[in-house]
Amino acid sequence: MYLDSRLKLPKYFVYDLYDDFSFQVGALSACYFGQRGYHVHLYEYRKDPRVSGNISKGRSINLALSNRGRKALAKIGLEECMVANHGVPMAARMIHSTDGTKRIIPYDPHSNQCIYSVGRNYLNGILLSAAEKRPNVHLNFEHKLVRADFDRGKLTFKCADKEALKDVHADLIVGADGAFSAVRNCMLKLPMFNYNQTYIEHSYMELSIPPGANNDMEKNFLHIWPRGGFMMIALPNADRSWTVTLFMNRDQFARLGRSSPEVLVKFFQTNFPDALRLIGRDRLIADFFSNQCSPLVSVKCNPYNVGSRAVIIGDAAHAMVPFYGQGMNAGFEDCYLLDDVLHNYGYSIGKALEQFSKMRNPDAEAICELAMYNYIEMRDLVNRRSFLWRKRLDDLLFRLMPKVWIPLYTSVTFSDMRYSKCIENRSWQDSVRTNNLSICCTI
Amino acid sequence: MYLDSRLKLPKYFVYDLYDDFSFQVGALSACYFGQRGYHVHLYEYRKDPRVSGNISKGRSINLALSNRGRKALAKIGLEECMVANHGVPMAARMIHSTDGTKRIIPYDPHSNQCIYSVGRNYLNGILLSAAEKRPNVHLNFEHKLVRADFDRGKLTFKCADKEALKDVHADLIVGADGAFSAVRNCMLKLPMFNYNQTYIEHSYMELSIPPGANNDMEKNFLHIWPRGGFMMIALPNADRSWTVTLFMNRDQFARLGRSSPEVLVKFFQTNFPDALRLIGRDRLIADFFSNQCSPLVSVKCNPYNVGSRAVIIGDAAHAMVPFYGQGMNAGFEDCYLLDDVLHNYGYSIGKALEQFSKMRNPDAEAICELAMYNYIEMRDLVNRRSFLWRKRLDDLLFRLMPKVWIPLYTSVTFSDMRYSKCIENRSWQDSVRTNNLSICCTI
Repeated sequence: MYLDSRLKLPKYFVYDLYDDFSFQVGALSACYFGQRGYHVHLYEYRKDPRVSGNISKGRSINLALSNRGRKALAKIGLEECMVANHGVPMAARMIHSTDGTKRIIPYDPHSNQCIYSVGRNYLNGILLSAAEKRPNVHLNFEHKLVRADFDRGKLTFKCADKEALKDVHADLIVGADGAFSAVRNCMLKLPMFNYNQTYIEHSYMELSIPPGANNDMEKNFLHIWPRGGFMMIALPNADRSWTVTLFMNRDQFARLGRSSPEVLVKFFQTNFPDALRLIGRDRLIADFFSNQCSPLVSVKCNPYNVGSRAVIIGDAAHAMVPFYGQGMNAGFEDCYLLDDVLHNYGYSIGKALEQFSKMRNPDAEAICELAMYNYIEMRDLVNRRSFLWRKRLDDLLFRLMPKVWIPLYTSVTFSDMRYSKCIENRSWQDSVRTNNLSICCTI
Repeated sequence: MYLDSRLKLPKYFVYDLYDDFSFQVGALSACYFGQRGYHVHLYEYRKDPRVSGNISKGRSINLALSNRGRKALAKIGLEECMVANHGVPMAARMIHSTDGTKRIIPYDPHSNQCIYSVGRNYLNGILLSAAEKRPNVHLNFEHKLVRADFDRGKLTFKCADKEALKDVHADLIVGADGAFSAVRNCMLKLPMFNYNQTYIEHSYMELSIPPGANNDMEKNFLHIWPRGGFMMIALPNADRSWTVTLFMNRDQFARLGRSSPEVLVKFFQTNFPDALRLIGRDRLIADFFSNQCSPLVSVKCNPYNVGSRAVIIGDAAHAMVPFYGQGMNAGFEDCYLLDDVLHNYGYSIGKALEQFSKMRNPDAEAICELAMYNYIEMRDLVNRRSFLWRKRLDDLLFRLMPKVWIPLYTSVTFSDMRYSKCIENRSWQDSVRTNNLSICCTI
C-alpha cells in the first residue's frame, strides 16, 4: 500500500455526539483511517460506553445489519465476529394480526439470505476497542464540540467538569456526529450548503419483552404489528429478550401518555393482544409512562465536504427514518466508500472529498426517500393484497431471471448496488409491469 | 382598542441582522407592536444606518413595493410618504434585446397599476425613525445575538467593543433577522422544526448607472436584459441613477472574475451593449472586479413559533429568491397579519402565534415557489412566444371577466389574495385553458 508522505502529519478525526444515541459510524471510520496510517483523534460527547454501561436504554431501535454494513465491517476484518458472535439472523418478517394469526413474508425467498439483529452496545464496544488497538488512534470522551472553524481547521470543545474551552487543530475534520450533527450545524452557515430536515408525524418509544416470557416468539424473524395509522416491531436479542418499538403519531402518544394505565392496557388489548401478554401488563405500564417518545427526522444536505478541511458521513450527512433498516448500513458504506475514494485519488484530499460528496449524495438521498416510502409500506401496505401480489410477482420474476429482475428490497438489502440505481431499476420494472399488464388487458 | 393587562409587562422584540443587509421588516414590526402599546426593545447587529450612512452598498437588490407592502405601511400611516416621496413608479417591464431593440410588457394593462422602486436606505431610515418616535420602543444597535433560550425567554448578546456578554429577558422574542436568522438557528435544534435551505446556481452582483449618463433609459420601467442562462435588471432611483443587478451562474462569475478587463468588456459588448454604454467601461471594470457576487438562497421552515415565547417573520421565516419582487412585501404582510391575529385572539399569545404559523406557512411556501418559478421566467421564458401568447390571453380574459379571471402576476402583486390561493387560481385557469384548447383542436 502506497502511503503519501502527508499521512505522517497528524490528522484529526472528530466524532461528537450532541444529543444522539449511537456512535458506530464514527468508530468504524476511525478504524478505517487508523488502518491507513492516519493519526486519528476521536472526540466523543459522552462517557466511554464500555465503562459507563448501556447508553442507549429507551432510545434504541435495534440495528439490522445487512450486506452493505457487513461488507464495510469485512474490510477491517470485523464482519465474522459481529455476525457469528453477536448477530441474530432474521430470515423473514412475521406479520401479527389483531386476531392472533401470523403470516411470514421472507426477505429473500430466492436464496434465503438473512439480515442480522445486532445489539447496539455490542457493536459500539467492538468498534471502539478495534479502533483503540491501533497506536495511531486516540479516543477522547466527554468532549462536546462547541464550534468548528473550517478555514483554520480548529475545533473548540467543552470538556466535562472544566470551565475553560479546549482548542485542537485538525488537518481533516470528519463529522460522524449523528442526525443532530454539531459539525453540520457549523456548515449550515457556509454559502451554497443546501440542507433539509423533515420531521415525520410519528414518534417512537422503546418497550421490551423479557427473556423468560417469549417462549412462543419465533426467534429468527423481524416481528411486525402493522395497524395502518401506527405499528409496532420487535427485534430479537442474543439473550432471547426482544427490543420492541412502538411507532405512533405524536398526538396519539400524548393522549395515551395523559390517560390512565387502564386505557393504555385496553389500547394494547385491542391492537396488540399477543404482544401485551409477552410484554406483561405491569412492565408495559411502567415502561410506557416512564419512557419518552422520540421524534423521527429525515435529513438531506449537499455537499458533504468543506474543501479539503471537513467531511460529514453517516446520519450527519443523511439521517433517515428507520423503516428500511439501512441507516447504519448506509453509514458504514460511507466509511467504505470514503476510504476507497481517498485511496483512489492518491490522498489528494480536496479532490477525493469533492468526488465522495458528488457521488454519494444522490445515493444517500435515494435511501432517505426509500426509507420514507417504507414508513407507509411497513405500517399499511404490507397488509394489502396489491402489495403482496406485487411481492409474489417480483419473487417469481427474480427466480426466473435472477440477473435481470432484482426486486427493490433485495437490491437495497442484499447487494451493494448504488441506492439511486436501485430506484432506477424499480422504475424500469414498474414500467415493464404496467405495459405488460396493458398488453394483457388489450389482447 | 382593548388592551390586555399583560401588555403592561415589558415585551422585548429582537432584531439581529447576522450577515444580512436590510432590516425593514424588523423596524416595521416594531412600529406595529409599539402602536399596540407593547414595550419593545429592538436589537440590531450593526450601527444605526441613519448615522453610519449607506449600509447596503454592493449588496442590495432595489426594493419593489407593491400592494401587500403598501397595505402594511398604510396601517401605520406611512404608505403615502413612502410612495409619494421616495418611490419611483414602474408601470411595465422594458425588455432589452442584444440588437438594441426594446419591448414593453405592462404589469397591469387592465388598470395601469404600478409597482414602486424604493431605495432601501430611505425605507430603513423612515421606519426606524417612526419606531423610535414612540416612547415604548427602544432601539439598541451593535448587539449581536449569540443565543436564544426560548424556555427562559433569555437572549444573550455580544455588544460591540465589550468582552462580556449581555443577557436580556423577553416575554416574546420576534426574530426578523433575515435569511441567515440567528433566532431561527436556535429553533433548528428544537424537535419537530422542519427546515429547508436551497441555494440556486445563480449569484448576483450589484452594478450601477450614474445619473448623468442615463438620458435614454426610460424612467418608469423595470428594465430587463434576459439572456437565457443569465440576466441583468435595472431599477430606477429617485436621483435618476439606476441600480443594476447582474444574475449569473457562480462558475461564470468566477471565470469572468479571473479574466482580464478586456474579456469582461467583450462579454458586455456581446450581451448587454446598450447597458455597457450607460454603465461606462471604466465604472464597469472597477465595480465588477471590486464587488463580491452574493449567493441566493430560498428558505422554508415550519412552524414559525416556539409556543408563546418566540416567532420568526420575514426572510427569517421564508427567504426567497428575488425574482417576484415579493420578499419585502411578504415580510411586511407578515407584520400586518401578525398584528391582526394577536388582536383577534385577544392577545392570547400562544394561540395567536400558533394560528399565525398555521395560516401563514402555506402562503409563504407558495410565494417561495413562485419566486423560484420566476427565476426561470424572467431570464428565459419572457423571451418566448408561448409565454407572450399566454400573457395576452390572460390579459384579454382579465379584461372581459375582471372578477373571475385574475392573472397570476396581478393577484400576487396587485391584490392581497392569499399566495396559496393565487397558485390555486392559476391551476384552475391552466385546466380551463387546456380543456378549451383541446376542444378547439377537436372541433
